[in-house]
Amino acid sequence: MSRWKPDARGRLEKAALELYNHKGFDATTVAEIATRAGLTERTFFRHFADKREVLFPGDSPLAALLADATAAAPVPLPPLAVLAHALAEAAPVFEERANLVRQRQAVIAANPELQERELAKLAALASTLAHALRERGLEATTAALAAEIGIATFKVAFDRWINAPERHTLAQHIRETLDAAGRLTAPDEHAAAPDDVGSTCQERGA
Amino acid sequence: MSRWKPDARGRLEKAALELYNHKGFDATTVAEIATRAGLTERTFFRHFADKREVLFPGDSPLAALLADATAAAPVPLPPLAVLAHALAEAAPVFEERANLVRQRQAVIAANPELQERELAKLAALASTLAHALRERGLEATTAALAAEIGIATFKVAFDRWINAPERHTLAQHIRETLDAAGRLTAPDEHAAAPDDVGSTCQERGA
Repeated sequence: MSRWKPDARGRLEKAALELYNHKGFDATTVAEIATRAGLTERTFFRHFADKREVLFPGDSPLAALLADATAAAPVPLPPLAVLAHALAEAAPVFEERANLVRQRQAVIAANPELQERELAKLAALASTLAHALRERGLEATTAALAAEIGIATFKVAFDRWINAPERHTLAQHIRETLDAAGRLTAPDEHAAAPDDVGSTCQERGA
Repeated sequence: MSRWKPDARGRLEKAALELYNHKGFDATTVAEIATRAGLTERTFFRHFADKREVLFPGDSPLAALLADATAAAPVPLPPLAVLAHALAEAAPVFEERANLVRQRQAVIAANPELQERELAKLAALASTLAHALRERGLEATTAALAAEIGIATFKVAFDRWINAPERHTLAQHIRETLDAAGRLTAPDEHAAAPDDVGSTCQERGA
């Protein structure tokens, strides 16, 4: 943080996230964001089409990164291992800006409309992953299924990381959660949580 | 179909879905729906708060049905088998009105805003399932993960059923797709589509 000199875009993003969290997303104006960042509204609109684009940038590298990493994963891996690889490759996008990511999640969690937008974004990422898996030769339904499960798992891993970042990196949370996903069908381990693999199921012990 | 006498609500729903599909959701007015159904706008608003509620009824029995079926599933089942059971129990809600369900999907597929709403509804169902799994004694993260994967799988199964309803019932698609999900981590079978591998699924949740 100390010597980091934020550019205009970075300053606008920081100011916007602070205001969205303090005042609420709906109550914040572009004028306020610009003032807080020490910049003009005009500068804001050079970087973002509107308030919402601060949270959902059109030029996010995430989709391309996931597609490339899926394509580059070693060939003999099963589908969920391919996705573990791809999602872990994308993890630094979040980890490098953990503070902003956490602020962004808090804003979204407080606003149902933004939540819907976020779900749509995740669905689009699932489509990207499904496409990349088909390119690897996977049959369409299997690719769609693996991609949906990959994103479902990512959501859970991401929440765990947001809530307990000091315990693991996001990449580790992703791998653990995907491992846990693989065990959900196994009758013997079915209540094992990602973290308490040893302590089996309450319900079975009954 | 032959002797089914639609009530006002059913007639309004049918008229609305036809108009949404023919004219588009945004271009359809409540007045047109009422006219087509041979009823008044006033009657429409006795049944639905607005045009969108025809597609997303506030009183859908689905969440309660899933929660109850999750609670009632036999105790020693692994989490995904519990969800296979619950989702298959809910399948008749869709199967009994397959025609309307298919029309509804076409309307939603044509409209990004409605898609976001549908994703939000599915996310809410995932929360319902996660809660029901926790009530069964599952640890919170495992419950969340299983619920997300269950809904992800349901989405894929539902798409398959919508596109090829004559091949299987929705309940069968759900069981097959969940079985396929269980195989996604297996290196030897990773390109197997839900249909390519013999149907090992029937015995499981039966």
